Amino acid sequence: MYADSMNDKTPNTQHARGPADHSVRDRIVEAAREHFSHYGYEKTTVSDLAKAIGFSKAYIYKFFDSKQAIGQAICSRCLSAITDAVSESISQGTTPTDRFRRMFETTVATSVHMFFNDRKLYDIAAYSVAEKWPSAQAYEDHIRKTLMQIIREGREAGEFERKTPLDDTVHAIFLVMEPYVNPLLLQHNLDQVDEAPRQITNLVLRSLAP
Amino acid sequence: MYADSMNDKTPNTQHARGPADHSVRDRIVEAAREHFSHYGYEKTTVSDLAKAIGFSKAYIYKFFDSKQAIGQAICSRCLSAITDAVSESISQGTTPTDRFRRMFETTVATSVHMFFNDRKLYDIAAYSVAEKWPSAQAYEDHIRKTLMQIIREGREAGEFERKTPLDDTVHAIFLVMEPYVNPLLLQHNLDQVDEAPRQITNLVLRSLAP
Repeated sequence: MYADSMNDKTPNTQHARGPADHSVRDRIVEAAREHFSHYGYEKTTVSDLAKAIGFSKAYIYKFFDSKQAIGQAICSRCLSAITDAVSESISQGTTPTDRFRRMFETTVATSVHMFFNDRKLYDIAAYSVAEKWPSAQAYEDHIRKTLMQIIREGREAGEFERKTPLDDTVHAIFLVMEPYVNPLLLQHNLDQVDEAPRQITNLVLRSLAP
Repeated sequence: MYADSMNDKTPNTQHARGPADHSVRDRIVEAAREHFSHYGYEKTTVSDLAKAIGFSKAYIYKFFDSKQAIGQAICSRCLSAITDAVSESISQGTTPTDRFRRMFETTVATSVHMFFNDRKLYDIAAYSVAEKWPSAQAYEDHIRKTLMQIIREGREAGEFERKTPLDDTVHAIFLVMEPYVNPLLLQHNLDQVDEAPRQITNLVLRSLAP
């Protein structure tokens, strides 16, 4: 299930061909993840990977067009781990205000956790953002969509103001969250990660007051 | 006048000793600025500088404790060029709202201008922020102070809300401006510099509504 949804988000790869192929894909992604987290994404070649798994390079290329395609599959997993945690947290929110708080807080906490626990993997995520990989774009789109839904619900419930065009509100909020949710920028902001998101959340909620 | 005020902001240097010394200091700073903007801050040594100006290394050390002290004097000039432009723009503002808009807009525009026109000099500014030089700290303090004054005036004029503690308001606004006013972060945000500050300004002004 999990692997399926990942594959859907990995454009440059061939499509599903059955359970056996899926499990090969999974093995490749898992081995690559191991390898990258030891040696870094940039230093690892597809040959290195092939050796590590005991497959031929040609066989790996049957499943992934390029190293980047493997990198993207890993990134999608990393970033999905964040969005899954966020969805879980939001589902426990009682009001749009509470859901917004949870969304921002959980995104930052999960990202920071990943950053400190698996630095090299996090580096792939940062790299993917810098290089505008589709996996990173999908992540940004997901955040914007979630935000849009929370703001819309807040407006319907009379909790948030409705004068500003919805798109402007969502875009501006995304911009002020960005330094803490974008893996590339978060690296520069780690020293204020304990306090800043809460302060920014409060500012955003003041801006949303009806 | 200009050089005087710069020297005042450069803590690790010896203090003023009269007009002749000032002009020597200025010559050193000017030559260093030239040199750094060709060869970069990190690659230039004090010996290189000494050769370029035709002074002995020992003579330069009579005026500056270290290469960093010279770098700081240059940074202070760069950053003061920004704060001078901002002060000038704010002085033409008609209301606290207008002054806030001008402040943010001018800071970003001047920084971006400097970035594109003298990239290597801008790099020193970014470096100074990363290394937390006193010149960079003084710049941040200046922005916070200016912001504090504008918010205070807006509250007194009834233009801005007064429920939130003033310090919290100022700090949160600083945080959302930071990615565009901090030279280190601005580099990552150049592709959205035309639109984002205006969007963020509007969000901030909504948050300030009484």
